[in-house]
Amino acid sequence: MPVITLTTDFGLNDPYVGLMKGVIASLAPEARVIDITHGIDAQDIVQAAHAIRSSYAYFPGGSIHLVVVDPGVGSRRAIIALACDGHCFIAPDNGVLSLILRDRGKGAKVYRMDDGRYYRHPVSATFHGRDIFAPLGAHRANGRGLAEMGTPMDVAEMVPLDLSVGGTAADGSLTGTIIAIDRFGNLVTDVTRERLVEAGLGRAAGNLRVTIGAHTLRGLADHYQSVGPGRPLVLIGSRETLEISINGGSAQHHFKATKGSAIGIFFSD
Amino acid sequence: MPVITLTTDFGLNDPYVGLMKGVIASLAPEARVIDITHGIDAQDIVQAAHAIRSSYAYFPGGSIHLVVVDPGVGSRRAIIALACDGHCFIAPDNGVLSLILRDRGKGAKVYRMDDGRYYRHPVSATFHGRDIFAPLGAHRANGRGLAEMGTPMDVAEMVPLDLSVGGTAADGSLTGTIIAIDRFGNLVTDVTRERLVEAGLGRAAGNLRVTIGAHTLRGLADHYQSVGPGRPLVLIGSRETLEISINGGSAQHHFKATKGSAIGIFFSD
Amino acid sequence: MPVITLTTDFGLNDPYVGLMKGVIASLAPEARVIDITHGIDAQDIVQAAHAIRSSYAYFPGGSIHLVVVDPGVGSRRAIIALACDGHCFIAPDNGVLSLILRDRGKGAKVYRMDDGRYYRHPVSATFHGRDIFAPLGAHRANGRGLAEMGTPMDVAEMVPLDLSVGGTAADGSLTGTIIAIDRFGNLVTDVTRERLVEAGLGRAAGNLRVTIGAHTLRGLADHYQSVGPGRPLVLIGSRETLEISINGGSAQHHFKATKGSAIGIFFSD
Repeated sequence: MPVITLTTDFGLNDPYVGLMKGVIASLAPEARVIDITHGIDAQDIVQAAHAIRSSYAYFPGGSIHLVVVDPGVGSRRAIIALACDGHCFIAPDNGVLSLILRDRGKGAKVYRMDDGRYYRHPVSATFHGRDIFAPLGAHRANGRGLAEMGTPMDVAEMVPLDLSVGGTAADGSLTGTIIAIDRFGNLVTDVTRERLVEAGLGRAAGNLRVTIGAHTLRGLADHYQSVGPGRPLVLIGSRETLEISINGGSAQHHFKATKGSAIGIFFSD
Repeated sequence: MPVITLTTDFGLNDPYVGLMKGVIASLAPEARVIDITHGIDAQDIVQAAHAIRSSYAYFPGGSIHLVVVDPGVGSRRAIIALACDGHCFIAPDNGVLSLILRDRGKGAKVYRMDDGRYYRHPVSATFHGRDIFAPLGAHRANGRGLAEMGTPMDVAEMVPLDLSVGGTAADGSLTGTIIAIDRFGNLVTDVTRERLVEAGLGRAAGNLRVTIGAHTLRGLADHYQSVGPGRPLVLIGSRETLEISINGGSAQHHFKATKGSAIGIFFSD
Repeated sequence: MPVITLTTDFGLNDPYVGLMKGVIASLAPEARVIDITHGIDAQDIVQAAHAIRSSYAYFPGGSIHLVVVDPGVGSRRAIIALACDGHCFIAPDNGVLSLILRDRGKGAKVYRMDDGRYYRHPVSATFHGRDIFAPLGAHRANGRGLAEMGTPMDVAEMVPLDLSVGGTAADGSLTGTIIAIDRFGNLVTDVTRERLVEAGLGRAAGNLRVTIGAHTLRGLADHYQSVGPGRPLVLIGSRETLEISINGGSAQHHFKATKGSAIGIFFSD
């Protein structure tokens, strides 16, 4: 029986997540449900897209990932299921699966989940997590095929993510964005190790310079304690993207950084 | 093996919820535990009563619901189990199950769970969630009958909820109360669809007027995006009660609303 | 299949906890994972040491407890497994298991978990919860022995907790420390019932005086409602240590107390 994961912006103070689990337990009693996170900022599709992209591969192959960050709930936006990289993703068609498709989209198949027989009725106008996503996940866990429950569509028809991808300047410098700030105040960026390597990281890691606001940080650290207590550092974090941290402190407070802030990356020879 | 759900005001920062699950895992290793919410405001019996009333039916029949919002822990207040609508509820006798009894009480049976043999000993004075509610839930999940573990009592003996139910004025207008504010700033009221229909909703939905503070909202929306971004709306939420929202924003901030605030509902012809 | 518990300072807003569970589900699909808490204050080893000490015994014998509060992640600090009191604890070697060893250490065995074959590769520099602790817990749950995965070491070699244990003065008075403040504002101290009894609690409970800041509280209450609403009280909490509370209120706000504050305990004849 496959794992069903949940990634939402519901938080844990309200009963919303519990209700999704109740519906799943009613339809697929043997399915195992694991929370990835319910702490996505309200209606932040970009943050959710990064979270599921960097998380899903740590779950068993065949897992069913419900991604419910859905500002358009109740409107005519579609609900889609993406079969990709050995996993199944069910989400509103609002771009939240775009990064998976971009990075791992080879051979992907996508379906519009428009067969209401697999919804829970009556379907409310405001809580499709309970009434549509949870039942679809449960039926999939019970072995129902995506093609049985939906209509094939072309991946090119999926709503794209509204994302300003950081660019590369003529001088080889990169720009990136802070996409998440974690509980420790670490600043997680969208600059992947791959982009750094292409831009010259392997050649001159010691000469890396990262700018954030009026600050410039030099070099790439191995781990937090590579620098003294309270000192800033740059490293490749556990998401395989560049992160800015303070050893034993909060980079968020130190740099007064906010989600969405730009950073610059330079390689001096 | 039935599902055991948890509804408490313990929050998730302290180990309290984990300890309840540890005790259940020790006594009923096969039982499946699902959190409804631990975010009930501290000692808010009314909020908990609404949360469990609007949540339990989404869980499988036969589920055991532990509701631990218990300002009187350690005092002589009773602990009761209510068998009702195919579910089992175990809670302090402080009114937290009153709304279930009011709405679905037909054929309900209630027991005073006073047989200490089914508690965990020693019983602390401050944490009956761990020492009484979790063991009772686990023994029930193992098949132990409520009548074996407790003493039948009359439902009329149950402590009632201290609840000012909204009234209906001579002109057909209704009053209601904000009973919860969710993570998105939606204002959840206690005005059920049933009350609205009785008061004339079906006849004149377009003429509905809702007052909150000095504001008046007109009409009933289908979903959040029925109005423009940043605009307020009134709809029937997923709990089947009237909610006040802002499309893409927070009604809590917009209206500076607080839990317990009154609203008025009018039907102009 | 044993229970695996998680005690961390990761919070629940980020995907970190979900990723640990994904890795465990991949390696040990039958293992059951229970959160003790993820609300330990960031990098607060002392708070985590108290939390696991006072929690583990409520879980089934044979449980595997992963304690990941790890300011030194990525540095050369060791990772250890402690077999003790019928439970297994896996943690960084930073003192977080010291209180268990102190209180229940008889017959304990400890291992340095240095066999990288049981890690998840590549091992990141910043997230050993996912790459080392979760896999070790899963392999242990699958029946792999600690001696197979690690190297025996002497318990005396374990890094001790940097802990100023409260002392006993010549006049028999005690000093203690507030080690946690819970969601209700209860002030949890490190003064155990045992220390109180040794100092004379049994003899003169009515004459107990507790000082916190400029305040003095007298006597020991049985439960919160032993005093009137809004009144302060002292009791033995569910961790079997002295706690300071307000009936229906927050001792944290009332006394403007902070974690780490000292309290004094006196017995007047």
